[in-house]
Amino acid sequence: MSHTAELIAVGTELLLGNIANTDAQMISEGLSQLGINVYYHTVVGDNPQRVRQAVEIARQRADILITTGGLGPTCDDLTKVAIAQAFGKELVFHQESAQRIRDRFAAMGRPITENNYQQAMIPQGAVVLPNDWGTAPGVAFQAEGTHVILLPGPPRECEMMFRYRAVPYLKQLSDGVIVSRTVKTFGIGESAVEAQLRELMNALHNPTLAPYAKPTGTELRITAHAGTEEEALALIAPVEQQVKDRLGDKVIGVDVGSLEEVCLALLKEKRLTVGTAESCTGGLVAKLLTDLPGSSAVFQGGIVSYSNSVKAGALGVPYDLLDRYGAVSPQVAEAMALGAREALGCDIALSTTGVAGPDLDDRGNPVGLVYLGLAWAGGCHVATYQGGRVERERIRRQSAQTALDLLRRHLTGAPLL
Amino acid sequence: MSHTAELIAVGTELLLGNIANTDAQMISEGLSQLGINVYYHTVVGDNPQRVRQAVEIARQRADILITTGGLGPTCDDLTKVAIAQAFGKELVFHQESAQRIRDRFAAMGRPITENNYQQAMIPQGAVVLPNDWGTAPGVAFQAEGTHVILLPGPPRECEMMFRYRAVPYLKQLSDGVIVSRTVKTFGIGESAVEAQLRELMNALHNPTLAPYAKPTGTELRITAHAGTEEEALALIAPVEQQVKDRLGDKVIGVDVGSLEEVCLALLKEKRLTVGTAESCTGGLVAKLLTDLPGSSAVFQGGIVSYSNSVKAGALGVPYDLLDRYGAVSPQVAEAMALGAREALGCDIALSTTGVAGPDLDDRGNPVGLVYLGLAWAGGCHVATYQGGRVERERIRRQSAQTALDLLRRHLTGAPLL
Repeated sequence: MSHTAELIAVGTELLLGNIANTDAQMISEGLSQLGINVYYHTVVGDNPQRVRQAVEIARQRADILITTGGLGPTCDDLTKVAIAQAFGKELVFHQESAQRIRDRFAAMGRPITENNYQQAMIPQGAVVLPNDWGTAPGVAFQAEGTHVILLPGPPRECEMMFRYRAVPYLKQLSDGVIVSRTVKTFGIGESAVEAQLRELMNALHNPTLAPYAKPTGTELRITAHAGTEEEALALIAPVEQQVKDRLGDKVIGVDVGSLEEVCLALLKEKRLTVGTAESCTGGLVAKLLTDLPGSSAVFQGGIVSYSNSVKAGALGVPYDLLDRYGAVSPQVAEAMALGAREALGCDIALSTTGVAGPDLDDRGNPVGLVYLGLAWAGGCHVATYQGGRVERERIRRQSAQTALDLLRRHLTGAPLL
Repeated sequence: MSHTAELIAVGTELLLGNIANTDAQMISEGLSQLGINVYYHTVVGDNPQRVRQAVEIARQRADILITTGGLGPTCDDLTKVAIAQAFGKELVFHQESAQRIRDRFAAMGRPITENNYQQAMIPQGAVVLPNDWGTAPGVAFQAEGTHVILLPGPPRECEMMFRYRAVPYLKQLSDGVIVSRTVKTFGIGESAVEAQLRELMNALHNPTLAPYAKPTGTELRITAHAGTEEEALALIAPVEQQVKDRLGDKVIGVDVGSLEEVCLALLKEKRLTVGTAESCTGGLVAKLLTDLPGSSAVFQGGIVSYSNSVKAGALGVPYDLLDRYGAVSPQVAEAMALGAREALGCDIALSTTGVAGPDLDDRGNPVGLVYLGLAWAGGCHVATYQGGRVERERIRRQSAQTALDLLRRHLTGAPLL
């Protein structure tokens, strides 16, 4: 049986535009992975009548109702009270939840006030979803043909509660299991992926294959529905192989993290260190690599050589080269990478030099033209990235990621760009 | 008369969780600035019946209806058709819009297809909101007591169309003008701001004063409603002065951009150059400064000295100092800033060294402890930032921003941290 879910976010801060409803995005993505349709999202403020009205409308349109926010003492547990009334449920005291709240306050060394215990009041007969990431417990129950799940609003809490509490509950609603694997790619757009895989996507029903355009690259999600996890994985395997075969070295991995995580893992495995010499990306490649905990094991350091004097002084790029070819040239990209390897004492160095815009450089190089250098013990390679005349931020992000892709290709023996 | 607006976003990509509804956040913030209440947001997919149903519900609850998305040929101009039906309007051909579409395609050198002209069909009697940022024009009209505004969905297009087309239209709905000024602060949380300004905020009605917590710092928006812009500004001025007096050197400016923009403008004005030496922030300070076009005029370069060998080699931090005090120490922060000034040939250097987590460093320094150095021709100063045990990303962002705040304070003569 196919289910339809509807999301209601409760919070005046959403209506004032203080924050975006990222909870809805996260939950919608998760529900689509479970094969559950979503037809509407609603956002409503901290107002009991309006929350109640939103619930009444939503329950007529969906058989799964998921609320986010409006739990906890600052809003008088608004959502729980409104939901309990809408479904004719009493709120009863839940001893175990009260104990968890007491323990949490004790651990933080903060005094507990009476209104904190309100969070331990639970709609009669509901399943309590323990919250290990905050104080307000979640709740799930079925009443009058509707499954209702209440989750806290703060994005991180909501994500953890959805992933570890709501998803297992929702999985019970379907027969069998739903399993997904995600093939991550870099350097190929969603429409090019669709063009290559359209026939396969259209031919498939179980598993399904769907592309997702993310700022970090196109992802392909293969989702199977089966009696057991093993059966689901067996359905996924041949499709995963087909996708990998078609997309070749554009695939950075399956169920992996970001490109920088893939690079870091490869560097650790091969016991190699890396360093950076950045001009147009201005520190972004170094920033991406050091976003990750444990990066100090492989990342030595970087030089942001924005001015020619720093290119010459810190990286040893000959002034002669800068004069002859200009800072934005394959020759300088190469000299920067070679110089960084020496200056930073690393096994592999990445360099970037290009025109991030909005204006052309003084030699008339077009906005979006970036040279990426890679130097290693055995040699040096320069790739050209032509991002086109888009926003500065996008040129910088894309060229930083392309530099990391160059590193990934080098480390995996794939053809360099 | 006070107005109530409701937002309807049309797009299946929102229901699949591919993107968050950032249009709703942007518009809600803008409406709150205009003094217009928002009680609900709705998101609905590319489905004519469901869009129609969402419109019918919304028009009973609000007198201003703003839709985003569902314009343009890929979705058969879904929203425009549904809205026209709901309000009993014919769609008529708008010659001027057709010409704009033709010109745009000609400028891009792309052939125009028949379905592109669908975008030139406009509800009879509606005001066309010309779109200078994309192909689908916006539309505004009043019918049966409701003001209806249709905007395109892509976030940047939507933002420009809202700011430059919808806001002027909405301003006509109120008598007189609404003017806002935003006081930006750094280094003071929303609750501390509220504690200091609560009485003032409660006492005010015109202008109003409201705090907004942003990741980049707390903002205070002063909004006045008056007959003319001059009258509104005259109402704002004394409140602005009071806010500045109370918050003192936490104020980075009024109606200014980011902290890095403020720093860049100050550096340009004083004809000074800057450079960075980063450990725990791993290139983020350099990245923030170079996010801005024109930064090459004042930013010389930076060194990301993640390993001790780079601290010693590229920055000249004595090994002796690293051994004696450890990399995370005020002594090393100072030596890094002094070394960067020399190595990069800049007037002012900023340095960061600290523990971004998730683990303590090898000397047992706690997660979140960061030393920030500032070196200039006349001396050197080290500030301590204690961010507490929060996520790595947040520690890095906050300490990078605090380093920039140190620079701002130095450049404006405010007390250093």
